[in-house]
Amino acid sequence: MDSMTAKTRKAGNSRGRPGHDRAAVVRTAVEAFNEVGYEAMSMNALAGRLGLSKSAIYHHISSKEEILQEATDRALETLQSVVEQCESCGGSSREKLEKMIRGTTLALCEETPYVTLLLRLRGNSEVELAALERRRKFTEYLMELVKKAQAEGQVRPDLDAHTVARLIFGMVNSLTEWYQPGGRLSPRELAQITVELSFHGINML
Amino acid sequence: MDSMTAKTRKAGNSRGRPGHDRAAVVRTAVEAFNEVGYEAMSMNALAGRLGLSKSAIYHHISSKEEILQEATDRALETLQSVVEQCESCGGSSREKLEKMIRGTTLALCEETPYVTLLLRLRGNSEVELAALERRRKFTEYLMELVKKAQAEGQVRPDLDAHTVARLIFGMVNSLTEWYQPGGRLSPRELAQITVELSFHGINML
Repeated sequence: MDSMTAKTRKAGNSRGRPGHDRAAVVRTAVEAFNEVGYEAMSMNALAGRLGLSKSAIYHHISSKEEILQEATDRALETLQSVVEQCESCGGSSREKLEKMIRGTTLALCEETPYVTLLLRLRGNSEVELAALERRRKFTEYLMELVKKAQAEGQVRPDLDAHTVARLIFGMVNSLTEWYQPGGRLSPRELAQITVELSFHGINML
Repeated sequence: MDSMTAKTRKAGNSRGRPGHDRAAVVRTAVEAFNEVGYEAMSMNALAGRLGLSKSAIYHHISSKEEILQEATDRALETLQSVVEQCESCGGSSREKLEKMIRGTTLALCEETPYVTLLLRLRGNSEVELAALERRRKFTEYLMELVKKAQAEGQVRPDLDAHTVARLIFGMVNSLTEWYQPGGRLSPRELAQITVELSFHGINML
């Protein structure tokens, strides 16, 4: 990393600009992918956004695909840690389900650009297909939790478990489309609403 | 239309191929946009998918943007007709809300490719921005319905109306990611689940 930083400093455009470490380049790239589309975003356009020369960017990253890989890994690891917290809590399936809904909502608020990129993948490359395969396992985990909670008598058995799991994730994932950091509601308040809506709905109690 | 059809028949590649009317070209184009991304899809690639020459395609449509305009108009008109049905039913805000959730779920199942394209717009052009502006009005309509139903005492007042509306649309809109025509559950059964989940949640009743 030190030699890369030294090299970057030599590139005229980036001299003295703050925040142009590798993480900042990746984050800006991910935000740009989300804005105009991964396929449509060129390394030239990315360089323009960062106010860096293309060669300065190549000190940090070797390709668009490397950014994609790193960003989706980060999103998937965040989601994996939510699953691990659910599994280690030792509660009922219903309790795990609640932790999963709350935890994924918080994860989406905290890691919005990375999860957004993950959710918009279409499987156009090996990297995308591998990420989609890992993502599919989270949906399957949620489906299994709903089924188990139904079997344990704590969740309505009349609603199809697979559909319910997809709809709950649809609700949570929609945060990537409209969540604004620093908005009127905090991530904790939003997580409380996703949990309430999932378990009790909006009908007058 | 007759002269266009005649012209198309003259193009070698399309001779005798069935289903290559304008509607089929638009639908295939929309599915291709959804699959690989609007920006990434070229007219050449579209011609390849349809087994038509590029000039044969230009008998039907003048540009990618014309397809985008037509497809988003179609999706928006479908959604507008759901709103009109809600408004003409003369029921309470809660009843309108239920009709809106059921109606948009059915609309998404029936018009999946067109609504999917609408939901994936990023505002990269005037056509996209205009469509996003019209789309925003549906979310505002849903937000107003939730607020009114809260004021009428039929929907819980403790959940933020704007967030609830976004989450409900997030749930319904997720169908564009996973709904398969001819799948295990019919559009009507799926619509019943979105309504039940929205109003009562998954908790054991």
